[in-house]
Amino acid sequence: MRASIISIGNELVGGVTVDTNAAWLARELTAVGCEVFEHATVGDDRSAIAEAVSSALGRADLLIITGGLGPTPDDVTREGIADALGVAIKTHPDAEGQIRDFYQKLQRRITPSGYRQALIPVGCEVIANPWGTAPAFGGRREGCRFFALPGVPSEMKAIFRAGILPKIVVETGGRRSATGVVRCFGTSEASIGEKIADLMAAERNPKVGVTADEAVISVRITATGEDEAAARVAVDADIAEVRKRLGRYVLGECEATLSSAVAELLKSSRKTIATAESCTGGLLAKSLTDIPGSSAYFLRGYVTYANEAKTGILGVPEGILASEGAVSEAVARLMAEGCRRQAGSDFAVSITGIAGPGGGEAPDKPVGLVYFGLADERGVFVKQILFGSHLSRNQIRQRSCRTALNILRLRLIEGDWP
Amino acid sequence: MRASIISIGNELVGGVTVDTNAAWLARELTAVGCEVFEHATVGDDRSAIAEAVSSALGRADLLIITGGLGPTPDDVTREGIADALGVAIKTHPDAEGQIRDFYQKLQRRITPSGYRQALIPVGCEVIANPWGTAPAFGGRREGCRFFALPGVPSEMKAIFRAGILPKIVVETGGRRSATGVVRCFGTSEASIGEKIADLMAAERNPKVGVTADEAVISVRITATGEDEAAARVAVDADIAEVRKRLGRYVLGECEATLSSAVAELLKSSRKTIATAESCTGGLLAKSLTDIPGSSAYFLRGYVTYANEAKTGILGVPEGILASEGAVSEAVARLMAEGCRRQAGSDFAVSITGIAGPGGGEAPDKPVGLVYFGLADERGVFVKQILFGSHLSRNQIRQRSCRTALNILRLRLIEGDWP
Repeated sequence: MRASIISIGNELVGGVTVDTNAAWLARELTAVGCEVFEHATVGDDRSAIAEAVSSALGRADLLIITGGLGPTPDDVTREGIADALGVAIKTHPDAEGQIRDFYQKLQRRITPSGYRQALIPVGCEVIANPWGTAPAFGGRREGCRFFALPGVPSEMKAIFRAGILPKIVVETGGRRSATGVVRCFGTSEASIGEKIADLMAAERNPKVGVTADEAVISVRITATGEDEAAARVAVDADIAEVRKRLGRYVLGECEATLSSAVAELLKSSRKTIATAESCTGGLLAKSLTDIPGSSAYFLRGYVTYANEAKTGILGVPEGILASEGAVSEAVARLMAEGCRRQAGSDFAVSITGIAGPGGGEAPDKPVGLVYFGLADERGVFVKQILFGSHLSRNQIRQRSCRTALNILRLRLIEGDWP
Repeated sequence: MRASIISIGNELVGGVTVDTNAAWLARELTAVGCEVFEHATVGDDRSAIAEAVSSALGRADLLIITGGLGPTPDDVTREGIADALGVAIKTHPDAEGQIRDFYQKLQRRITPSGYRQALIPVGCEVIANPWGTAPAFGGRREGCRFFALPGVPSEMKAIFRAGILPKIVVETGGRRSATGVVRCFGTSEASIGEKIADLMAAERNPKVGVTADEAVISVRITATGEDEAAARVAVDADIAEVRKRLGRYVLGECEATLSSAVAELLKSSRKTIATAESCTGGLLAKSLTDIPGSSAYFLRGYVTYANEAKTGILGVPEGILASEGAVSEAVARLMAEGCRRQAGSDFAVSITGIAGPGGGEAPDKPVGLVYFGLADERGVFVKQILFGSHLSRNQIRQRSCRTALNILRLRLIEGDWP
């Protein structure tokens, strides 16, 4: 099944927003054995939309269109698709009912423009969007199956997975593919590439590739086979091999994150955690509570941003703050200790550092210097890391949070300080 | 000058890599007055490239092609463009010389495949690439000026700015554009669309469009004019008009966020803030400390996730937690009060709610129910919001954080509870 993707929006074609929907859809479609052979992007322009849709309908077996289904006058995807199909647009009762239900559930008033979203090209079926106001729709023309979805990424993804992907899977016959991802942390992309170079050979099935995103390294495995089960077996064998070679760097598969890995380990060991943060400002607590059910292990977090808070809440002596500085091994240790004592938790993790861009004036305390503390029943483990000062404030905060989670992860899997 | 952009690469069309080149090029071209009306993405497939290029040459005045100019056998952009032009490819002495110089400078041996990069469609001019091995090239066909560049973003950008943009500026003959963005929060996209419908008329200059991303609504304004100053004046007039009509919903322009807006307001009024969070787990503190220099206003944050923490740290009585529940107006009020008292700050903001997916079993306490408290010298303002339970845990947490920031923003700009 040869698939084409069209993204619609002035903000996309003008480059104000980078289109991430097309890449996401391409990966989803590839995973079910479609061959995505083109994307196109056009603005909120009825005739340009009509031309792009009409042209793609003639080339593709499957066409996914996103964007331009909202309530405002610049949303003209409905009209453009109708022109390409040579039909009118008409209020569809299913769409109208869905919009009414959605607004009622939120106890909000429907504006007249809200009902514009119920206009659907004649002959198309409505596809439910329980996540937003604009219904999706689909149809078929000249051997090409097509679907139109709102462009808001979260809605688009939810509708695609719930209402469209199952239809596509039924319609694609034949050769299937399966994919897997192994997520790693604590080493470099190049080092991982060397350890699995043989698996990454170009002509091999499965295909294995490595990508890095903010220090999390993903090993992607895609296999094709006579059926899904055969492809799955090949992927699983590679996953096992990758896990064997990469050992403690592997934090999990698929959507696994450092947070979810740590959450699993804390839950299964019935341990509790508390946090004391300075430069990350709550990001570590936020990451630990990203996971549903985090109340099973997360007790409390302190964001001791001002020195006064470090002293008042965690009992870090003013004298130590004055002599060692807030960004120091001693303070990281005392923050973790004080936090574990206050919270009565099994573990406490502390972070204190210089996220920048200001504050790195002292030559021995540059931007990017961060101390981590991990308190447990044996005492406190402290680690210092100097992140490059080329990183942004946000990157230093994110990397600091990931490093703290990884220290906790290694402590939990190895039963000892890392 | 109507411009089209083509991105080439299997990794792009398959979604493994998100294409950021097209958006970057679109912004560069828009800034010099071109109207980018389409992007296309195709794989490393000679006939698909030829078809895409041929079709774009017929529609556009300017065509920029990136990717597929490297030395490996899968790089077939040269061949595809030559097919579209109906010419052969031939080693170009300028390109060959440039490749030889580049390798020499790096003291590397040229592989035979390196010289593949000197093959250029007959009739095209070579454009220097001092940043990599693959030369760029350009030409003209049927009133359409076209350029082909390597896809590596850093090389592409450097070549474009040094060797291509100056040629385009000469050929566009003057007309320039300017852009602006007004960011809003606290109302719906549809409601904003209605308030500025006349400004959004299709044929108008400036062009005005509205997009929504996780409850932040952006109004984008793009004007063209005889020169940049004229375009800027037109944009600024529209920004003033949009600000007037949307009033308190406007949080700022360009890259403004709720965090940066609140940070500015706290700094300029020399007020301090502390936070007490339950369901958002530290996200509010993290957002307030996203901004460099946040230590000027942010004192401390409490993540009182367990009930014990709400009692032990903030002094919320166990009896109230038992009778009203942790997610209640009373507890939001007591959390904000206790936080302000502990921190000695001017303001304290509290959040307690049910982020889900679990925990919404009681019929009067569904997933998405969130209470906010804002304590100041006058007492505590409390607000209840029922976010739709269709939202994910992450969305409910993000929206809660934004709502809390907006309550604080309105308090700061209006000097009164919102």
